[in-house]
Amino acid sequence: MESPASPSTGALPYYVAFSQLLGLTVVAMTGAWLGLFRGGIAWESALQFNVHPLCMVIGLVFLQGDALLVYRVFRKEAKRTTKVLHGLLHVLALITALVGLVAVFDYHKKKGYADLYSLHSWCGILVFVLYFVQWLVGFSFFLFPGVSFSLRSRYRPQHIFFGASIFLLCVGTALLGLKEALLFKLGAKYSTFEPEGVLANVLGLLLVSFGVVVLYILTRADWKRPPQAEEQALSMDFKTLTEGDSPSSQ
Amino acid sequence: MESPASPSTGALPYYVAFSQLLGLTVVAMTGAWLGLFRGGIAWESALQFNVHPLCMVIGLVFLQGDALLVYRVFRKEAKRTTKVLHGLLHVLALITALVGLVAVFDYHKKKGYADLYSLHSWCGILVFVLYFVQWLVGFSFFLFPGVSFSLRSRYRPQHIFFGASIFLLCVGTALLGLKEALLFKLGAKYSTFEPEGVLANVLGLLLVSFGVVVLYILTRADWKRPPQAEEQALSMDFKTLTEGDSPSSQ
Repeated sequence: MESPASPSTGALPYYVAFSQLLGLTVVAMTGAWLGLFRGGIAWESALQFNVHPLCMVIGLVFLQGDALLVYRVFRKEAKRTTKVLHGLLHVLALITALVGLVAVFDYHKKKGYADLYSLHSWCGILVFVLYFVQWLVGFSFFLFPGVSFSLRSRYRPQHIFFGASIFLLCVGTALLGLKEALLFKLGAKYSTFEPEGVLANVLGLLLVSFGVVVLYILTRADWKRPPQAEEQALSMDFKTLTEGDSPSSQ
Repeated sequence: MESPASPSTGALPYYVAFSQLLGLTVVAMTGAWLGLFRGGIAWESALQFNVHPLCMVIGLVFLQGDALLVYRVFRKEAKRTTKVLHGLLHVLALITALVGLVAVFDYHKKKGYADLYSLHSWCGILVFVLYFVQWLVGFSFFLFPGVSFSLRSRYRPQHIFFGASIFLLCVGTALLGLKEALLFKLGAKYSTFEPEGVLANVLGLLLVSFGVVVLYILTRADWKRPPQAEEQALSMDFKTLTEGDSPSSQ
């Protein structure tokens, strides 16, 4: 009998392509917003602030989203290769985000502005710490050798749930930051449909769309990565060990 | 053999209780914020605006969240009863949100303010329309008689995914609205850790927590509602019809 999953996996590449189109548009549009309305980007000037939104969107939205999709895109490669790629993309996202964080704290310091007073900054710091902890715990469980199969299996659903939640919280935090940047600069002019306001609103909707499409690809049951032959054998061995059956009796 | 789901379902009531504690705290704190720092609530005055955040938080956050949890809480009742309760809670949420929407549009009209210019309002209108469409489609598929079992089964995962996404988008929109209300009133004073700013930031984190806890309860595989005897029989009949096997051969 044909597996019930096989017919509908066909649309997966189109959804992945669409997510990449959305993600790249979000990054390009963040760049366009900063270039057209905020004077561009530089480290050693008042433009240092602008490093922050660009790095956060590239790291904690685009790269993080793509790290989550690795298991849906690389379906037939060895599990370990896919795991390493997943971990590396998250490291890249973390480093990019760290540059973005240093930029804003350094900018605040030079300008004498207060730190961590807004809802955006509270959510941002919280989610950055959670993201780092999630990476450490994920690394210890799944890439560090010696953790038992049963412990990994028990932790896996938690890792997936918190990974998706952290990603969504990053998207939400980006929206809060965008809104903050708009209101601080435009103030009452925001209500006159200034080009910057409209562009930033469209960027906000695209951020939401990227989050929804990544979540859709992640949660569709028939698009989950099928276990490879060697993983099935491992899982079978484990069952044999714990349940005391011989493989032939399965 | 004992079902593998039974041992871990034990913690479900505690998580549900915690979600309710969080949800009620969010509603109470929204009321406290409006009462302590915004002069309270009234329809026929400048306080009409304050009806908006309170109704949206009660309707599109608390009641919508609870509507999603109905299938996890009422696990042994007839499916139809649970469905009707799910649909009714969503109607109540929709009506409450509609009052909140009328309040803000009416307030804007009286004050001569522009409508629908901000990211909060764009997300808000989008998610309200999506919520209404989701309710109509859900009603047509699941409560209106005559839709086939197979069509319902195919639509169910989409309904669940979009339901959860709409709920999360509502939480995100609430955060944007809260931030907008803070920045319009406090402006640069926001950075001096004014009591209103701190209270609203805590409210924002509680909104996020409510969203995460509801999502956790919804997505935990072993907490899904088990099919009741009569539903299993129906599903068996359907399988028999489509696969041409006799029930005894299953």
